Amino acid sequence: MHLLKDAIIKYGKVLAGDILQVGSFLNQQIDVELIDEIAKTIYDNFKDCAVNKIMTIESSGISLACATARFFNCKVVVAKKGKASNVSGDCYTAKCYSYTHGKTEDVIVSKQFLSASDNVLFVDDFLAKGSAMDIAIDVTSQAGANLVGMAVAVEKGFQGAGDKLRSEGYKLLSVAIVDSMQDGKITFRN
Amino acid sequence: MHLLKDAIIKYGKVLAGDILQVGSFLNQQIDVELIDEIAKTIYDNFKDCAVNKIMTIESSGISLACATARFFNCKVVVAKKGKASNVSGDCYTAKCYSYTHGKTEDVIVSKQFLSASDNVLFVDDFLAKGSAMDIAIDVTSQAGANLVGMAVAVEKGFQGAGDKLRSEGYKLLSVAIVDSMQDGKITFRN
Repeated sequence: MHLLKDAIIKYGKVLAGDILQVGSFLNQQIDVELIDEIAKTIYDNFKDCAVNKIMTIESSGISLACATARFFNCKVVVAKKGKASNVSGDCYTAKCYSYTHGKTEDVIVSKQFLSASDNVLFVDDFLAKGSAMDIAIDVTSQAGANLVGMAVAVEKGFQGAGDKLRSEGYKLLSVAIVDSMQDGKITFRN
Repeated sequence: MHLLKDAIIKYGKVLAGDILQVGSFLNQQIDVELIDEIAKTIYDNFKDCAVNKIMTIESSGISLACATARFFNCKVVVAKKGKASNVSGDCYTAKCYSYTHGKTEDVIVSKQFLSASDNVLFVDDFLAKGSAMDIAIDVTSQAGANLVGMAVAVEKGFQGAGDKLRSEGYKLLSVAIVDSMQDGKITFRN
């Protein structure tokens, strides 16, 4: 079994509202050794896809995106939430609803960092309802870039967004897919 | 000269309002190879300080914090902005004014990730007016942890916060200190 699944079983907590808390190793506290293992698994799955750019959305996917970029020897483009004073010039813009924060925000990527010549792998920590994936599809399409695929550490399989993306033909790797959290017991998809 | 200074000269842009834009390698787009070089410099300066935890504030310090944690073989604690649904339990809380976003936010760290037994190195991408450092001091003090020191990639030296921290006795490493950006020309402190 992948180390990530062991960590989810050992440290993950199921909270009210179908929330899977993996904060102790994936985002509030980051276990960089585990992140590197997950990144290696992502690399093994996409190493023949001519990936030349990793994309993520701030902030909890940044650590995994950077670890993955190390294997691909390429740069990471971070879609930023909200309009910040240190982002200037022309940007691609998309709308993002964050279930974690309960609000809709603009997500922006400077046009200078993404173009039609890019083969993009989108990386995030979590796939739940798929809003980050929608942004990846939207922004790479605006840029005319080729979205090679998407990779996440943990997919909440029972929420359906992952299977919908697969049925639409996207190459999606979820290193661990949680298919059920009934009564606090976590069950993985094989 | 450190690679970071070369990158600032080559790719940095001076914008109105004393903003130094280094988005093309440090935050909007991340050059992981350069980040690793900066992390190595930080490690060399703090390797004898028994650091057992890296702390940062989301989001632009996360990549450098994770790269630094790899050298120290320790975990990263990320202070999160705003109250998110996936953070539960007792937290340390501090107030943060973001000059980049122009608003004050709560910054929270779950108490389970920081305690009196920790030797903490705070890592961030930028030191301008020092608000992130104030949070590091505040939160580690609440936890009773030992704040070993602070390290940033770029310090805007002319804004004074770095020198104030040094005069107060904090061990602060800034891999590049920009002392002037007059007329768009960037001058480093020796």
